[in-house]
Amino acid sequence: MKRIMRSGMILVLGLGPLMVQAQAPVSDETEECLDCHRSVTPGIVKDWEKSRHAGNTSGGALRKTPRERRVSSEDIPAVLQRVAVGCYECHSQNGSAHADNFEHFGYDINVIVSPNDCRTCHAVEVEQYRGSKKGEALDILRQNSIYQLLADDITRLKEVAAARVVPGHISEHNKGQSCYACHGTEVQVAGMMTIETEFDDIEVPNLTNWPNHGVGRINPDGSKGACTACHPRHSFSIEIARKPYTCGQCHLEPDVPAYNVYKESKHGNIIFSKGADMDFERVPWRVGEDFQAPTCATCHNSLLTTPDGDVLAERSHDFGSRLWVRIFGLPYTHAQPKEGSTWTIRNADDLPLPTTFAGVPAADYLIDAKEQSIRRSRMKGVCTGCHASSWADKFLTRIDSTNANVDRMILAATQLLQKAWDRKVEEPTDPFDETLEMMWVRQWVYYANSVRYATAMSGPDYAAFKNGWFDLAENLKAMETELKVRAKKKLFRR
Amino acid sequence: MKRIMRSGMILVLGLGPLMVQAQAPVSDETEECLDCHRSVTPGIVKDWEKSRHAGNTSGGALRKTPRERRVSSEDIPAVLQRVAVGCYECHSQNGSAHADNFEHFGYDINVIVSPNDCRTCHAVEVEQYRGSKKGEALDILRQNSIYQLLADDITRLKEVAAARVVPGHISEHNKGQSCYACHGTEVQVAGMMTIETEFDDIEVPNLTNWPNHGVGRINPDGSKGACTACHPRHSFSIEIARKPYTCGQCHLEPDVPAYNVYKESKHGNIIFSKGADMDFERVPWRVGEDFQAPTCATCHNSLLTTPDGDVLAERSHDFGSRLWVRIFGLPYTHAQPKEGSTWTIRNADDLPLPTTFAGVPAADYLIDAKEQSIRRSRMKGVCTGCHASSWADKFLTRIDSTNANVDRMILAATQLLQKAWDRKVEEPTDPFDETLEMMWVRQWVYYANSVRYATAMSGPDYAAFKNGWFDLAENLKAMETELKVRAKKKLFRR
Amino acid sequence: MKRIMRSGMILVLGLGPLMVQAQAPVSDETEECLDCHRSVTPGIVKDWEKSRHAGNTSGGALRKTPRERRVSSEDIPAVLQRVAVGCYECHSQNGSAHADNFEHFGYDINVIVSPNDCRTCHAVEVEQYRGSKKGEALDILRQNSIYQLLADDITRLKEVAAARVVPGHISEHNKGQSCYACHGTEVQVAGMMTIETEFDDIEVPNLTNWPNHGVGRINPDGSKGACTACHPRHSFSIEIARKPYTCGQCHLEPDVPAYNVYKESKHGNIIFSKGADMDFERVPWRVGEDFQAPTCATCHNSLLTTPDGDVLAERSHDFGSRLWVRIFGLPYTHAQPKEGSTWTIRNADDLPLPTTFAGVPAADYLIDAKEQSIRRSRMKGVCTGCHASSWADKFLTRIDSTNANVDRMILAATQLLQKAWDRKVEEPTDPFDETLEMMWVRQWVYYANSVRYATAMSGPDYAAFKNGWFDLAENLKAMETELKVRAKKKLFRR
Repeated sequence: MKRIMRSGMILVLGLGPLMVQAQAPVSDETEECLDCHRSVTPGIVKDWEKSRHAGNTSGGALRKTPRERRVSSEDIPAVLQRVAVGCYECHSQNGSAHADNFEHFGYDINVIVSPNDCRTCHAVEVEQYRGSKKGEALDILRQNSIYQLLADDITRLKEVAAARVVPGHISEHNKGQSCYACHGTEVQVAGMMTIETEFDDIEVPNLTNWPNHGVGRINPDGSKGACTACHPRHSFSIEIARKPYTCGQCHLEPDVPAYNVYKESKHGNIIFSKGADMDFERVPWRVGEDFQAPTCATCHNSLLTTPDGDVLAERSHDFGSRLWVRIFGLPYTHAQPKEGSTWTIRNADDLPLPTTFAGVPAADYLIDAKEQSIRRSRMKGVCTGCHASSWADKFLTRIDSTNANVDRMILAATQLLQKAWDRKVEEPTDPFDETLEMMWVRQWVYYANSVRYATAMSGPDYAAFKNGWFDLAENLKAMETELKVRAKKKLFRR
Repeated sequence: MKRIMRSGMILVLGLGPLMVQAQAPVSDETEECLDCHRSVTPGIVKDWEKSRHAGNTSGGALRKTPRERRVSSEDIPAVLQRVAVGCYECHSQNGSAHADNFEHFGYDINVIVSPNDCRTCHAVEVEQYRGSKKGEALDILRQNSIYQLLADDITRLKEVAAARVVPGHISEHNKGQSCYACHGTEVQVAGMMTIETEFDDIEVPNLTNWPNHGVGRINPDGSKGACTACHPRHSFSIEIARKPYTCGQCHLEPDVPAYNVYKESKHGNIIFSKGADMDFERVPWRVGEDFQAPTCATCHNSLLTTPDGDVLAERSHDFGSRLWVRIFGLPYTHAQPKEGSTWTIRNADDLPLPTTFAGVPAADYLIDAKEQSIRRSRMKGVCTGCHASSWADKFLTRIDSTNANVDRMILAATQLLQKAWDRKVEEPTDPFDETLEMMWVRQWVYYANSVRYATAMSGPDYAAFKNGWFDLAENLKAMETELKVRAKKKLFRR
Repeated sequence: MKRIMRSGMILVLGLGPLMVQAQAPVSDETEECLDCHRSVTPGIVKDWEKSRHAGNTSGGALRKTPRERRVSSEDIPAVLQRVAVGCYECHSQNGSAHADNFEHFGYDINVIVSPNDCRTCHAVEVEQYRGSKKGEALDILRQNSIYQLLADDITRLKEVAAARVVPGHISEHNKGQSCYACHGTEVQVAGMMTIETEFDDIEVPNLTNWPNHGVGRINPDGSKGACTACHPRHSFSIEIARKPYTCGQCHLEPDVPAYNVYKESKHGNIIFSKGADMDFERVPWRVGEDFQAPTCATCHNSLLTTPDGDVLAERSHDFGSRLWVRIFGLPYTHAQPKEGSTWTIRNADDLPLPTTFAGVPAADYLIDAKEQSIRRSRMKGVCTGCHASSWADKFLTRIDSTNANVDRMILAATQLLQKAWDRKVEEPTDPFDETLEMMWVRQWVYYANSVRYATAMSGPDYAAFKNGWFDLAENLKAMETELKVRAKKKLFRR
């Protein structure tokens, strides 16, 4: 086809309607939004005009078969069903719940469209997401005293006094640009503010901890999450969400090298080489027909069918629903937590961590063997869309072995750190702010995670030299040296 | 559309002319070049044949509206206006100024086409570039004694004598493959040399410090710069220049992680996911219509309009023209320098650096508050093509906060280094060649820059674990340890 | 063209046959495979159906001109020539040689299709690959006692006893996920196993060290290699193999940063920016016409011609055939080895390494000056498809200079390590498992390689700050310090 086009002989005639993006009727309110915003923020208006939201009505969407539908609510209000999903339709939902609702040229508008607003049409997805680890991502970090300690130690300012580094003030700002950029901020409304526009000065809500599109953002209506983290404004494209670049915004080396490993994998190799010929838009998504290798979404949440329409995996916006083990070790691998609210976990040492520092899992808070088996089967169902059953079994079993091996390398590091604590070389109240402690953090946050992701998704460099086994070994040796020097020298004695 | 094509029913008829790459008349001289080079260097001939230069005349280009023009000179010679922009048209310009001009099968040809030659048609762009930091990139590095010291320390050879590392000879070659590959070399002509061709032996100029296409290259005609650094030979494509891969050739982690941060950003996410559907060729470039997320060029230099043609930002080939602050800290952030010739700066310590080691800016050499405000407004004008004015303000203000916070982490490192110097642990004459000094270099060149770029362009991993706050903290701790050990031990006393 | 389509006026009619993927007759056996596998592993069936193997017969392929052929065997069995290259055609070859051959619903099937099976149609490529470094990649690592020591040291488990890190057991599993994932495993058959299918329980061979698609995999028929490492199942696409993502699966930083450097290079810049408009499928591959910048395959193995069909480089599946020097230093650069079986090399110190630790090459095992010159000319023949002969000469000469300079930085590190051994600070029996030893490993495996690849393929950051000269210098300084501390302190004395 490409070649035919190149050859320079194509008849271009009539039939325009086929090519024009379908247009759905636009509500009067949205038309009025567009009147100004076409010149005020033309980029997002055009982005929306090219989107599925602009070209379709939710009523039309409901007339598709359940499998093909991109809406999941059965009770979409009739007034919405008749019009395109426009500015006003989204930004006016549930206004009374929104602290960021304000009067804007005669309309009551919310600045932020929250998952609770998207729920009007996409109820099932919002419900799946709610309470999941992603939905709870801000509180997972903020409500967990241990994780807060780590975040504070890393991002707080430091000062130098008498040749020593001393802790300075804790910076929410610094956390906002690092941790909370992915985990989400709590967006609040600090009254109104005046902004100049080309028409006139206008009053708008003064949002704090904003801009942010972290997955666990707490919105001014109290809801948690940001659908736009993965379906960005204002196309809200399923294609973008299905492409690996989206997950790559947060799941990066050195702490969570999922995207890096994927890029190195055979799956990534095929997608980056041939993705331009694949269909990332279709629902349901047909293995082999629409795509010939998986992206993150394929394995972790999309509705997948065979070319004949048989379901290989149901859609879920709880991204843990096909995961039995959590390879992001804290510090050791463990069965997935039962609930997204992981700050409520208490392990045997009474810490809000899924394992103790010695590796004992907080089993009461983690899914049991039966649930693990169910989730593993779900994932295997994706694998066997292409791979033989025996291939998949061996692949998944290998992940278990790696987890066990890597956990032993964390145990060794923890034993060295414990010796440092025992010998008063370092001080365990804050386990993250001294030299050996930070080496220990690297052992599990960087190197152990790297090897695990590399095994789970086949990116061998990340298991070898790129934060892999070489680093696990070298870091352990360095911890040994550091302990030896500090334990023996008066210089370092506390 | 894609689906229609896949379905396998397209009528392919007539209308060929619409599809064929337009062909402009080729000059007799260029035709003669092509006669041989079609077999000698067929790749670049074909590349050119598919280019805009081959398909258009500058005369035709001048008949476009000023906004749509890709040429900016008003006085293009009539003889050039009538023909395609071919081999001879470019390689014969201003021959008398070119030390690399030589007789080549009856024609006087320059090996290198310089910005001064491109100026024949693109005068405004060349003028904007001239004297900018990019245009002066070689001298910025070469004429600055401090930067030369750093470059020499890094790239010189080292030897071992009596178990000590001692400096070996300084290698221009090593700098050529590292520093100067981006900054540019000074290309000179060392007489003529003979090369074998399939036709006959021929004489060509013997260029030194060549090949090179660094942005600040000094050419054999004395001009500075290489347009082909971003518009590569021989398509000279605006599409390539607008794509982020181009900037990614030099602006990479760990020292200038702009491209890495961009890849992780939501902007990058959208471009990498949907860029294939966008138009990177059109002039002027219309937000929303041609592209739905920015690349480097969008924010930093392209002419941008709304879909209706209103200008959001004027084109500039001075890439600092929309920047008020320089986040590439040297070592601290500072207002942009007034001139690209930054080696002429003298700070309060009489060093050619925009700030002192204590952070005091060399204000006389930096743009003032008013100019900062003008440039910030230009950048905000790009942001508000899509984002609300309040969103943009908060985003830009956040950059200021991060700069202030990160600068404090550099100050802390500098204070530790100063202690090392005070206690004769290390020696300040060369501030880059000892252990604590190199740690200090990493603090500002790697980790501080990483956090700043991460904030300026939203790549949170680069503010957290990937050369971010974790590294700023750990490195400071390591400097403290190193200082303590060396200050107390006779072993390290100088 | 793109614009014309967007404009929304295309006549879509008739001519379907032109668009439909050509279909070749499918053998009865393959049809029976497909009957079940369309539902058992639908993804790979569809992938195959869209492939060249499904759309063509080898008989048809043989009717092309030799230059255009993708098959190279002259004696393809007649029965195969008449049908599409389907499941049965590949999975039934040479069954008696296959330990993994098993009876599967009435057919004798091999689980793994090996290079020896692909040889039926692609004899020349298989022959070129056989005995090359890639083909021997597993034994290169496994049969070399020095490399095994390094691999074992890195991947073995470690334990802590009395505050010391002590070696734990050697893990073949860990090597399988890291080293052998690229180098290949030896896949063996451990009897039969039962798996559940949706139809019935079936017996299949129980493969060990599987899954694996490393380039030097040893297959159950005894053959070496995996064509699917680069031409992945089940499209076996030449397009994928020619794209840089494929090589990027293994040739990554920090040890072999070829792909990273390529991405940063001007070549990569152009391919990533404009590759969507290029033709990665055509055979032979025409410089300028089909592509305007090279990928890995272009320079290292593809058959290249001018647009007029003159050969620039012959195809070879010995990926060293255009390489005169081996820049992957072990530990120093050296002439390419004569044979892929590098474990048979003995250097002057009687070690199976191409150079001694002092840098003396094992010349008897390495190609001589004449062969180096031949290979260098082959590579230059690729360069001059686009670049002037003088340009190419200078570029290639530069590589030699860099190699010499970098080798001196390895020599310096080796001299420090030798001092550590002489002074009994560390113990040379295993040269890879102690602190200074691991720093020495980083000097050549990471930093030296990085600078060399950066020079060979123009990625300046990898010569500067990204594992480049900065790291070569800093690591040397750190080795000096470590040696000084350990040599003087009783604490570290052995």
